[in-house]
Amino acid sequence: MKNYTFTKSQELFRRATKVIPGGIYGHYSPVVLVPPEKYPFYVSNAEGSRFRDADGNEFIDYMCAYGPMVTGYNNPVVDEAALKQLKKGNCTTGAPPVMVELAEYLVDLIFSMDWAFFAKNGGDVTNYAVMIARDATCRKKILAFKGGYHGVESWMQTPGRHGVIEEDLKHIIRLDWNDYPGLEKVVNHYENDIAGLIATPYHVPAFSDSVMPESGFWQKVEALCRKNGIVLIVDDIRHGFRLNMQGSSEYFGFKPDLVCFCKALANGYPISALMGTDALKTVVSRIFHTGSYWFSAVPMAAALANLKAMEQMQAPETMLAIGKELFSTMKRIASDYGYHLAVTGAPSMPYVRLTNDPSLMLHQDWCAECTRRGIYFTPHHNWFVSAAHTREDILQTLDVVDEAFKVIKKKYADRFRHEAPVESEKENCPY
Amino acid sequence: MKNYTFTKSQELFRRATKVIPGGIYGHYSPVVLVPPEKYPFYVSNAEGSRFRDADGNEFIDYMCAYGPMVTGYNNPVVDEAALKQLKKGNCTTGAPPVMVELAEYLVDLIFSMDWAFFAKNGGDVTNYAVMIARDATCRKKILAFKGGYHGVESWMQTPGRHGVIEEDLKHIIRLDWNDYPGLEKVVNHYENDIAGLIATPYHVPAFSDSVMPESGFWQKVEALCRKNGIVLIVDDIRHGFRLNMQGSSEYFGFKPDLVCFCKALANGYPISALMGTDALKTVVSRIFHTGSYWFSAVPMAAALANLKAMEQMQAPETMLAIGKELFSTMKRIASDYGYHLAVTGAPSMPYVRLTNDPSLMLHQDWCAECTRRGIYFTPHHNWFVSAAHTREDILQTLDVVDEAFKVIKKKYADRFRHEAPVESEKENCPY
Repeated sequence: MKNYTFTKSQELFRRATKVIPGGIYGHYSPVVLVPPEKYPFYVSNAEGSRFRDADGNEFIDYMCAYGPMVTGYNNPVVDEAALKQLKKGNCTTGAPPVMVELAEYLVDLIFSMDWAFFAKNGGDVTNYAVMIARDATCRKKILAFKGGYHGVESWMQTPGRHGVIEEDLKHIIRLDWNDYPGLEKVVNHYENDIAGLIATPYHVPAFSDSVMPESGFWQKVEALCRKNGIVLIVDDIRHGFRLNMQGSSEYFGFKPDLVCFCKALANGYPISALMGTDALKTVVSRIFHTGSYWFSAVPMAAALANLKAMEQMQAPETMLAIGKELFSTMKRIASDYGYHLAVTGAPSMPYVRLTNDPSLMLHQDWCAECTRRGIYFTPHHNWFVSAAHTREDILQTLDVVDEAFKVIKKKYADRFRHEAPVESEKENCPY
Repeated sequence: MKNYTFTKSQELFRRATKVIPGGIYGHYSPVVLVPPEKYPFYVSNAEGSRFRDADGNEFIDYMCAYGPMVTGYNNPVVDEAALKQLKKGNCTTGAPPVMVELAEYLVDLIFSMDWAFFAKNGGDVTNYAVMIARDATCRKKILAFKGGYHGVESWMQTPGRHGVIEEDLKHIIRLDWNDYPGLEKVVNHYENDIAGLIATPYHVPAFSDSVMPESGFWQKVEALCRKNGIVLIVDDIRHGFRLNMQGSSEYFGFKPDLVCFCKALANGYPISALMGTDALKTVVSRIFHTGSYWFSAVPMAAALANLKAMEQMQAPETMLAIGKELFSTMKRIASDYGYHLAVTGAPSMPYVRLTNDPSLMLHQDWCAECTRRGIYFTPHHNWFVSAAHTREDILQTLDVVDEAFKVIKKKYADRFRHEAPVESEKENCPY
């Protein structure tokens, strides 16, 4: 079996550290790839469900560019639409006609939403959503959940992080996920002071198991927001189009006021979208929000083609089915070796970890052993499945998974005993 | 002469208003195109210095996508590099090798800067610069100039704007441009409280004449910042690569700590860059800042090709020369008709207005008469020249300019007397 080396990635990284702070930053930082010497840092080319790193090693990709890749790298249908638009024009002096078409398409698709607004980053639209909530209500406070990630602007960050001052977080109240009584208590305490509540459809805290909403949680939250005039914002940037095509709030059976989309919209072409209800349309019109490339036509044409392709191929159902089969089999294999693989969140974007070693070394070793054999598993971020992953990919993945378990079993022998499933998984695993 | 109609633009706009708040938002909003019925809103295709609107009307473009277009729409050299990269991959699971190459190239090019960090919006990097200044100094206050535009995040906006709360602006102190004594007074008053100063290289307030720095202004500002440990941030998003290739601070002879680039970097492909000095590199490494598409390879490959092309064709010098010739001739023509055309700022991105009518109607009418004859002049934003504007473009522009003056002279007769040049122009006009 393959045993990759990463000489050129390391060489590029050494060059990078001289001219880029940290070499590679943000969620792509090698700091979260442990041990780093067993991971590729630079990708040279990609096609379908696979990429090749700078050293020419091939990987089946379970990160999917951290979400954006959803119908396969270099999907011919999406690229054709993008290239056709590029020939006509991309970033020009006027809005492109395709912008209207895309907005109409999205408003038809996401049926609880009446309008769309386009930007570039996910954070552009989560930030805008909060400004809208404040302006619509003439209130300041924003509710969010502890560990919920909504981008990198100062108010979105956690206290004590570098570059953040206390005023940035003064009106942000972080609550415990799924704790409805706690939420109700805070809403009653800050009577008429709360502008909005922002949350992902289900909870995806960093470095932790994902947690589904408890039965009835969203319906109670929706009712509470309605009653108290709180703008309900769904951050569907990561989840959107990996559970269904209609927006994750539809999947969980509730109606928000604003929904933020980004990653999977255009299969990697840079675009994000805020969608909302008619009640907020006038408010949106009066808040100035814009960016140099927000009217570029190519990502809009790509989004339109990608969404249509996803509908046609029933991409969310496909991804959920692939994930369900793959990760349930992986759990069984783990169990055969005496390990427990916790898989939380949706099968199309699960958080996966071996629970047998609290130090995480076992889990990191297993991920790295898979990765150096061509199955790209990062240890501390949720994974992503795409609609381009094939049966061959699944079989190859399961082969490597088995081999990697053999390797770590040999290395650690009986050092880690088989533990019971973790609480969060028992409650939330949809397998 | 041509006399355009905009039926299809109006039709698209009517459709848009149903599904997009305001139809078209931000700096592309038709609200600033007065009278709107004389402007195209939608662009169907673009090439070189020209675009065609949805109705098929052709325009010589003096907005250049509000800045990003700098070497011509669909520049073959830039597009070829972008397409070559697109075939390999764009938004993938790792950083692209071209990211290292682009950072190295920029560090060589902008010689006072030691590193580069890439994002998407201009605001991504101005916001990051402020976070860096605060973290580096353990201080909170940020100095900026009244009317200076740095993006749309809450702290960048002006008081009273919708969606902004007082806490967003609590530590932002806005000063008068070119008022060094005023700046010194504030710095002394807030002794050891000021984290950073952010400013454009010269002042480009909205709806107003541009104002150059007074002789020695930047040198005094730099010395004051050094003395007081204030991080000096240049927002070169609009100006960058339209004055020179080395960064506008070099053009004005001073050395900042951080420089923000965006618009002209990649001829419209979406990328922004923060560059800085080694002293701040460690600080940058510890502030988490990222976005879904920030590691995409295509805009980086496009930036590299575009910057090289600009160096080769001496693009800034070309744009300055084209602008100098064009706008000085336009001033003369205006004068022949008894009007005064104020042209402030650099000839490659001047703010142009007829001064004879304080109600602005005369100026708006003249811009619209040029636009409906194929010369796209917006009335209340600075214009942009590109290196793709040709001699033929200039001659055609001057023909239309003359014709439009004839039309407004006939319409208004002697209603507006010839006024003296405005103060800001006398002081700052580089013609």
